[in-house]
Amino acid sequence: MVYITRVEKFNAAHKLWVSEWSEEKNIQTFGKCANKNWHGHNYSLFVTVKGLPNPQTGFVIDAKKLSNIIKEQVVEYLDHANLNLDVPFIPKNLQPTTENLVVLIWKQLQPHIKEGALHCIKLVETDAIYAEYFGEE
Amino acid sequence: MVYITRVEKFNAAHKLWVSEWSEEKNIQTFGKCANKNWHGHNYSLFVTVKGLPNPQTGFVIDAKKLSNIIKEQVVEYLDHANLNLDVPFIPKNLQPTTENLVVLIWKQLQPHIKEGALHCIKLVETDAIYAEYFGEE
Amino acid sequence: MVYITRVEKFNAAHKLWVSEWSEEKNIQTFGKCANKNWHGHNYSLFVTVKGLPNPQTGFVIDAKKLSNIIKEQVVEYLDHANLNLDVPFIPKNLQPTTENLVVLIWKQLQPHIKEGALHCIKLVETDAIYAEYFGEE
Amino acid sequence: MVYITRVEKFNAAHKLWVSEWSEEKNIQTFGKCANKNWHGHNYSLFVTVKGLPNPQTGFVIDAKKLSNIIKEQVVEYLDHANLNLDVPFIPKNLQPTTENLVVLIWKQLQPHIKEGALHCIKLVETDAIYAEYFGEE
Amino acid sequence: MVYITRVEKFNAAHKLWVSEWSEEKNIQTFGKCANKNWHGHNYSLFVTVKGLPNPQTGFVIDAKKLSNIIKEQVVEYLDHANLNLDVPFIPKNLQPTTENLVVLIWKQLQPHIKEGALHCIKLVETDAIYAEYFGEE
Amino acid sequence: MVYITRVEKFNAAHKLWVSEWSEEKNIQTFGKCANKNWHGHNYSLFVTVKGLPNPQTGFVIDAKKLSNIIKEQVVEYLDHANLNLDVPFIPKNLQPTTENLVVLIWKQLQPHIKEGALHCIKLVETDAIYAEYFGEE
Repeated sequence: MVYITRVEKFNAAHKLWVSEWSEEKNIQTFGKCANKNWHGHNYSLFVTVKGLPNPQTGFVIDAKKLSNIIKEQVVEYLDHANLNLDVPFIPKNLQPTTENLVVLIWKQLQPHIKEGALHCIKLVETDAIYAEYFGEE
Repeated sequence: MVYITRVEKFNAAHKLWVSEWSEEKNIQTFGKCANKNWHGHNYSLFVTVKGLPNPQTGFVIDAKKLSNIIKEQVVEYLDHANLNLDVPFIPKNLQPTTENLVVLIWKQLQPHIKEGALHCIKLVETDAIYAEYFGEE
Repeated sequence: MVYITRVEKFNAAHKLWVSEWSEEKNIQTFGKCANKNWHGHNYSLFVTVKGLPNPQTGFVIDAKKLSNIIKEQVVEYLDHANLNLDVPFIPKNLQPTTENLVVLIWKQLQPHIKEGALHCIKLVETDAIYAEYFGEE
Repeated sequence: MVYITRVEKFNAAHKLWVSEWSEEKNIQTFGKCANKNWHGHNYSLFVTVKGLPNPQTGFVIDAKKLSNIIKEQVVEYLDHANLNLDVPFIPKNLQPTTENLVVLIWKQLQPHIKEGALHCIKLVETDAIYAEYFGEE
Repeated sequence: MVYITRVEKFNAAHKLWVSEWSEEKNIQTFGKCANKNWHGHNYSLFVTVKGLPNPQTGFVIDAKKLSNIIKEQVVEYLDHANLNLDVPFIPKNLQPTTENLVVLIWKQLQPHIKEGALHCIKLVETDAIYAEYFGEE
Repeated sequence: MVYITRVEKFNAAHKLWVSEWSEEKNIQTFGKCANKNWHGHNYSLFVTVKGLPNPQTGFVIDAKKLSNIIKEQVVEYLDHANLNLDVPFIPKNLQPTTENLVVLIWKQLQPHIKEGALHCIKLVETDAIYAEYFGEE
């Protein structure tokens, strides 16, 4: 069993804001992340697939094909997007935190990984914060 | 003459959009950067000051003081901000490109550097793009 | 179950030296790391907490709060410190190796993580050496 | 139980090419990686050993000794080498993909790790691709 | 005057070998870099263009256009190539050292930079070696 | 004229402390950097040499030779050392700041660079601070 990871990048805007809450409570909870006019990040997305290397090609999954799947299913939607407004697979009532994004990206990608099995989604939001999801309930 | 550089970071949203232009021309010129709902970046700001090290402290300028000046004069305004809407020292008719930002940050910082002389503003927008300004007309 | 990681940094001095051993044996075992006059490192500390994202905030634990806990309980003690002499939670008879430090930092932080559960302490000593501890006996 | 990782680097040439296949099928499968005249990479190799820190030295395994083992058993063979032609422990009928390399490096290193136990081989081929092997069948 | 830099990457094989010299002299001079079966690197190419930002777009040169020029004129030829054998703009009697490559890449790119002026070619061969060329004779 | 840069690393302890000053003034000036028991850093040293590439070897200076010169003349003295106590070429009355170190390293290296000419010493102390010296009075 070998784990192969492909990294893709995207740049996006977002804010953290619970619409049921007052402005005070939002700012108290989320600080500068609640700026109404948005802020943004350069995100790095690490997608790990596990499986046995094909005896002929030596690939668990062709990294180029994996890159294309990630671009079509995820980056196409998230790159240069507003994560609160623009992305069909992000529910409007969910905060676009790194923690929520890794679960949503897993659900978006998982049906399309047909060689090997999706093992981990890791999303790096800044040099100081990243989240990981392994499909665990 | 020694050059000392301090690095600070901020996260911001922006878009590239010339208000006199049609939507078609904006999209044709700026591509995904013209998304009306914004996108964003993790910016790294490198501020270089040149001068002679003080014979007692060994500092051209105390890096901690330099850090505080950068935070007060620049990061405080740009971090978790919308570069098109929120920043008093970014004129509304100027695109917040990396090239324009380094000049504006220079003008914002230069009067506050009183030990040594400001030498360079470098701003890294993504792993693949950065701009530098040395105060040259 | 999602894993969220926060990174903090500190700079410290240390040496590796077993006081019961002769100078020869210390130098033979630890090489340059046994220099009596100390050496030091820029350490990067990765703290991973696992849990379910809060349905409203989207946080497993607020990364800002996690950052404050790490700073108060760990970085405050280790930054610009001598790891052999200055730190109350490092026993004097334990070498301040990366391996021992991750266990000690786990013990220091674990009681303060009250949202989610502490999952991993990773400490990067140089570009070429890091240690991880998952709370396993 | 603590995990200690040592990183070593090497630069090598390779190509992906199944000799039983036609040139068309090779190029269709491997794209530019099938260039007959080779291409190459800067590889970063992460070797993780797990165990209990020695009560006196604080080492799971002395990182300097681990470095020497990696250099003697792996880097000596792979650095500035052609991975298809020059390396005795890479079978000629196996593609030198990152996935296959981590398994082969595990087998090469494992008998020489006598303090602690080998836990993971991670090989980074580019900023966008890496593979990991944990000794799982 | 602002300087804008775009980074592109490519992976290539090469060797250092003076055909007029004996094998002994080549190995004595170039060490492992003279391995007949080649070795390779992940190269990072930094292209810096200087000029005045356009008052409307804020661009010295559109980074996307600059990226396309670099890909068409340089990366297309060098990526997954053998630098000694495959590249029309590398003379067969010149060693493909980082120093020679920056000059050759400058000559290849310079006629195609029509907004602003080419200022610097920087090529990073490994974490420990890079070369820069500013068009100086 | 081409510029070639070689990077070497070392780990060292230091403190900032003016012996003619009171403890209060030292702490007021240098903050945590004045800790009597020292602190330390992982330093990265960038040495740039300029010259014309040799027509046969393609080298301004053989990077391997340059590496050996840096190791013998600089790293040998600074690695795992105390910069205030252990280094013959650091005067006892000079603070071992990054600014002072680049000048001292220039003086130590310059007489040994006999192919090309020493152009720049850059020393990175942390991710947020570095100094450069170009031999300017």
